[in-house]
This record gives sequence, structure tokens and C-alpha cells, in this order.
Amino acid sequence: MLQPEKLAQAIQILQELNLDAWLIFARETEETPERAWELLAPGMVVWESALLLTKHGDRIAIVGQGDDDAYRKSGWYSEVHSYVQSIRELLRATVTRLDPQQLALNFSESNPNADGLTHGMFLTLQKILRDTPYPARFISADPILSRLRGRKTAEELRRIRAAIKRTLLLFDETTALLKPGLSEKQIAEHFHRRCDEWNVGTAWAWNQCPTVNTGPHSSAGHGGPSDLRVEPGHLVHIDFGIKQDGYCSDLQRMWYVLKPGETEPPAHITHAFNAVVKTIQAAADILRPGIVGWHVDARAREVITGEGYPEYQHGLGHQVGRAVHDGGTGLLPRWERYGDTPYGIVEANQVYTIELGVQTDAGYIGLEEDVLVTADGVEWLAPPQRELMLVRSN
Amino acid sequence: MLQPEKLAQAIQILQELNLDAWLIFARETEETPERAWELLAPGMVVWESALLLTKHGDRIAIVGQGDDDAYRKSGWYSEVHSYVQSIRELLRATVTRLDPQQLALNFSESNPNADGLTHGMFLTLQKILRDTPYPARFISADPILSRLRGRKTAEELRRIRAAIKRTLLLFDETTALLKPGLSEKQIAEHFHRRCDEWNVGTAWAWNQCPTVNTGPHSSAGHGGPSDLRVEPGHLVHIDFGIKQDGYCSDLQRMWYVLKPGETEPPAHITHAFNAVVKTIQAAADILRPGIVGWHVDARAREVITGEGYPEYQHGLGHQVGRAVHDGGTGLLPRWERYGDTPYGIVEANQVYTIELGVQTDAGYIGLEEDVLVTADGVEWLAPPQRELMLVRSN
Repeated sequence: MLQPEKLAQAIQILQELNLDAWLIFARETEETPERAWELLAPGMVVWESALLLTKHGDRIAIVGQGDDDAYRKSGWYSEVHSYVQSIRELLRATVTRLDPQQLALNFSESNPNADGLTHGMFLTLQKILRDTPYPARFISADPILSRLRGRKTAEELRRIRAAIKRTLLLFDETTALLKPGLSEKQIAEHFHRRCDEWNVGTAWAWNQCPTVNTGPHSSAGHGGPSDLRVEPGHLVHIDFGIKQDGYCSDLQRMWYVLKPGETEPPAHITHAFNAVVKTIQAAADILRPGIVGWHVDARAREVITGEGYPEYQHGLGHQVGRAVHDGGTGLLPRWERYGDTPYGIVEANQVYTIELGVQTDAGYIGLEEDVLVTADGVEWLAPPQRELMLVRSN
Repeated sequence: MLQPEKLAQAIQILQELNLDAWLIFARETEETPERAWELLAPGMVVWESALLLTKHGDRIAIVGQGDDDAYRKSGWYSEVHSYVQSIRELLRATVTRLDPQQLALNFSESNPNADGLTHGMFLTLQKILRDTPYPARFISADPILSRLRGRKTAEELRRIRAAIKRTLLLFDETTALLKPGLSEKQIAEHFHRRCDEWNVGTAWAWNQCPTVNTGPHSSAGHGGPSDLRVEPGHLVHIDFGIKQDGYCSDLQRMWYVLKPGETEPPAHITHAFNAVVKTIQAAADILRPGIVGWHVDARAREVITGEGYPEYQHGLGHQVGRAVHDGGTGLLPRWERYGDTPYGIVEANQVYTIELGVQTDAGYIGLEEDVLVTADGVEWLAPPQRELMLVRSN
């Protein structure tokens, strides 16, 4: 089971960081998922609820009556408490009994995966603990969550591999399917049909996943597939991932539609494609435990601009897991919007995308690979695309 | 289209409350849904993004490059701005230009539907607006969101009615299906099969929706269906809702499994069932625009205890809509955990559940009805259950 593995890992991380306690405080988790909650808990909660983990191994759940059954039945928690009218006394008494020197909470300016505590719930917690020493001991749980979400367990890796396998199957089908006249929307419909058959979700918003771009007039953003149709001479770009058993894949693949008489893409298209491939390889070559995230992004920018193309206007890579943008550390430029995440250190057992693209007069060329960080480098989780897949016009 | 209707309604509400501006600030909305975002926006965002609405009718979107396409294409926003490295300057300049006397943000201790701003994002916003007058003008958007989510538009009501219709169909099928020997899990599987066929979600967590309880040993909480099997003499209780086109239903229905020789339930079971029916009717009789939420809950407690049964250990009713617990005002007791929501005033076009239960030696008796508040009372959105549905044992 996933959650007991992650609970044990969380307690190891508290020990490693020498942090006394971590408090996850949430409500209505079905409507507003608290990303740490789903990783550690056996079920949703409606009323204000708390999970308290300590470096001594305490695993305490305080939930509303009606929600407590699943917590008791799971056996994952060393204590399960429930309440009817207010969580205040139970929570205050429990924190006081544990008397932590640091109380980590899920807020982070940099890392959305460590920012599950709403501002209203933060204010509530301050009130509940008023006139105790603990509000002054609040710290961000970002160091905990970055590690916990980053370090994939065997079960998590199994699920990610399975999601990638199905995604590759869909790309293979696409190669057989592609032909002039098909619209971006029709291509996306095929992906959605398969997801429905398999009963899996998309890795991001259904109506924007896959991204499908055919030809030079299609926008490579997250706007969703359009009515533009595949034509001879088009590049076709698909960015897609599924979410299966709670875990995501995220890959981009490229096709070129030959014009009548053509047997290969125009030279400048192949050149651009090869530049993207080379850049991804250069990043993979230096990605390993201990490297700082932004160094990998910077290396990629150096390579792609050295090939004569402009810098991509996004980060080179993010972690993948339960969330398609998972973990903390990213292979990201030091832009303000990425906060501290480019400064994180890469660890073994993290899964990253490596992705970038360039615009051409035949369309957008974007590739994205998924890699697992190993003890001394990376493992490609899908065979990386090294050549444009060719589609014949007739 | 739903979102333009809700955008227009939001601006009316700002005028009605005489509030200058409302700022919705979110990121990674696909992983951490901001409940107001999905109501007003054409698509998800990845990077830090802002929607700014004013009482003068400004509708401004500031989103990361790549996400902006959908916002421009929709035509719903009077201004769409995009950025690459940081939202800071754009957001700061836009707020300064609008110079609002109040800047409403989505935080609320009471109302989870108005608490979409994470604490990390709140801290970021404070920094972005540092040394301007605006952090001192932050107020809670709860009054806006309670109204906006509560007042269902024609399109929202159409969707809720459609979700309820399908739920009733499933209850009818259950009456035909029920027989001794079926387990709670098997009954739930039928509901899930239908949801898969219809390609709709459940109103709350899949593995806890429906709640199925057969007989006196089943727990009526949110623990999910068990391996307990239907037996003669059992009450069977199902709490279920679907989410279809983004809108929910939420109903509870009751069956009694006759023992050999029985032609009706034991008298004390019928008495308890009738007490629940009577209590729901008494609440519906006084529910209308202008009444304070907790008055309705208090009336129900008076009736059920007057019938000789204990008070239910939850609130009498919540609003239903995009979220199964929607809006702000609830028909709730003045318990601390409900915050201010029991003190809200009921308005026309809100949809409420009315629900309660009592425990008996044959099982839990729980009923839940969905009603629309009209100009002078309520409309039952599903025919209310007035008699136990009977299941024959052979």
C-alpha cells in the first residue's frame, strides 16, 4: 500500500531534518484537495481535520465524526481522535502534549506542492493555538514535502512506469492514425476515447490534454486543440499524459507530414529537431544526484542557443508523480515566478521531465522526455525520440 | 455559457455590496482547484495568475504565457495580460491603476468555498503589494462568494436538475436489485458501473460514494461500503450523489427488507422513519428567503427530539451546486466548527439539502432531500421519500 510507505518515509524525513512535528490541517479535501493529505491518509475529510506526525514516530489523526471510520480501519495511525462540535480542544491539547520545538505547516511561496494550507485555515490554526508557544514555532513544511514527494517509492515508480507505457501506446496509435484532413480536435478525441475506455484521467485539464499543434498557425500554449487540420508539410506536436492509479506521465512527441514527392523533412526542420534532441541529451548527461536544478536548465539554454535557436520561455523540467508538476526542486531558470525551486538539489529516485521546443515555419517542435534519477545518472523511462516520425500524405 | 453568466453576476454582487474590487490569485489550478477560478475562468493556469473584477465592470485576467490563449479566445475578459518571468510588475501596476478602497481576497475561516487562497500565495501577494496602500485594504471575499455560489443561474439549475434525475434513476434500479445476500460493496459497485457508463463522477470521493449501510452493525459515517450483507430485517440506507457537467446531486434513500411472513416493517421502525419524514417536512415548511440558517436547523432538532429521538450529530442542510457542500449559508447548528455559516440569511435560487437520521436496531434511518428556495418557500427537486421502500426476501 502506498500511504503506509509514504507515512514511514515522512517520519524518516522528519528525523533526517531533525524537525519535531509536522501538522497537516485541512477540510473538505474532496473539493479542495490538500496534496499532502491524499498521500498520507486513507480517505477524505469534510470538517476541519489534522494529521500530526513527529520524528518520534507518532502518527495522529484528528477528524470529524463520520470521517473517523476509515482512519481507524486503516490501522495506519497510532492515534485516531474524532469530534463533533469543534476540533479546538482536541487539537490544542494534542499539540501541547507533543510540545514540538518546530511545527511544520504546509505553506510555501515557491512550491505549490507544499502550499496546501489555505489562508483561512492558517488564521483558524493561529486562533486555536493562541496563548501557546506554538504559533511562534510555525515553519514551512516545504523541506519535508519536497523530499517526500520527490523520493519515489517502488510502488510509486511502478505506477509512473505503467502510466508512461500506456501513453507510448497512444503515441504509436497516433502514428497510424495521422493523415491530412484530421483536425487537432479529432486527434484529441482519439486520446480521450482511449482514456474513457481505460477509465484513466488525463494528467492535466481534460479539455487541454492532449495539446495538439499542427502546422505553423497553431499556438503551442495550453489553449486546447483547435479546428486546424493536418496538411502536407505540417509538423504535428502532441503534449500528453495520463493519470492512472493517481500517478502521471507527461511526454511530447513529434511527427512530420511529408508533402507529395518528399521522402524526408526539409533540412532546416531536421536541423531544428536535432538541436532539440541534442539539448535534451546534454541535459540528461549532467542530470544526477547532487546537481543544482538551475544548472541543468542553464546547460540546456547554452546548447539550444549555441545551435542558433532562441531560449525556450519556460523551465526545462519539472518532477512528475501524483501531480504532473510534482516535488519541489525543478530544472528551472532563476526566474522570480519559480521562487526557490531552481535552487534545489537533485536526489536519486526523483522523476523529471526534460522538455523544450523551437518554433519553425512548419510548426512548433517540442519534445519532452521522462527520466528517473539513478545513483549516478538517469534512466530514460520511455525511449527518447531521436527522429521525426514521418506521415505520408496519401 | 456558464462562466459569462457568473461573471456578470459577480459584478452585480460587487455593486450590491459596494465593494471596489475582487482579486482571485491562484496557480496550478488543475492540481489544487481554486473554487472561484473554475466558476469564472475559461481554463486552468499553471503559473501565478490573477483575475480582477471591479464594481465598474472591469474583468481583468493576468496569466502566464502559454495559459493566455484560452483567456483571449473566450472574449469574457475586458483585458488579458500575460507574462513570462514574474507576475509582480503587471499585478502591482494593475492594482495601483484600479486603486480600490477594498480588495477582496478568497480567504474565510467559516466558508471553505470562499477559502481558495493558500497561505503561501497570501504571503506572495503581500510582498508583491509591499509599500502600497493595498495590503491594508484586504478583506474577505466571503460575502461575494456566498452570494455568487448560492444564487444559481438558469443554467446551473438545469445541470443540478439533470444530476438529480439520474440519481433517482439509480435509486429506482436499486429497488429492483436489492435482495438478501448482496454486500454493501456489491451495491456500491452497481452505482459505480452506471457512473462509468454515463461518464459522470460521484459527488464526493469515489470510494466513499455511495455510502451504503445495511443492518444495525454498519457504520453510518463516510467510511465507505463494507462486506456486510443484506439480510431479512435490515434497513438499507444509501447516501449518494453524482457530479455531471460540474454540478452535483446529494440524496439519501431508505429500504426495508421484509422478514419471511412480514408484510410491513415493525411498528417502531415505521415510527422512526415517519419521525424523520415529519422533521424534514417541518424544516421545509419554514425554509424561505429571509430566514436565518440556524433557525431551520433548530426547528428540526425540536421536532425530532419531540418525537422521542436524539439530535442528529451534524448539520441539517448544506447548499448543493458545483460543490456538494456549496455556497455559504447553511441550515446548521451554531457549533464552532461551522463558523459564521449558520448565521447567513437564506436567499431565493439557493439549493439546500435537508437531511437527518436516527439509529434503530434494524439499522440507520437517514433521509436527505434536495430543495430549491423559491420566492416564498421551496420546491422539492426530487419527490421526497414518504414511505420505506420494501424489499421481499424471496
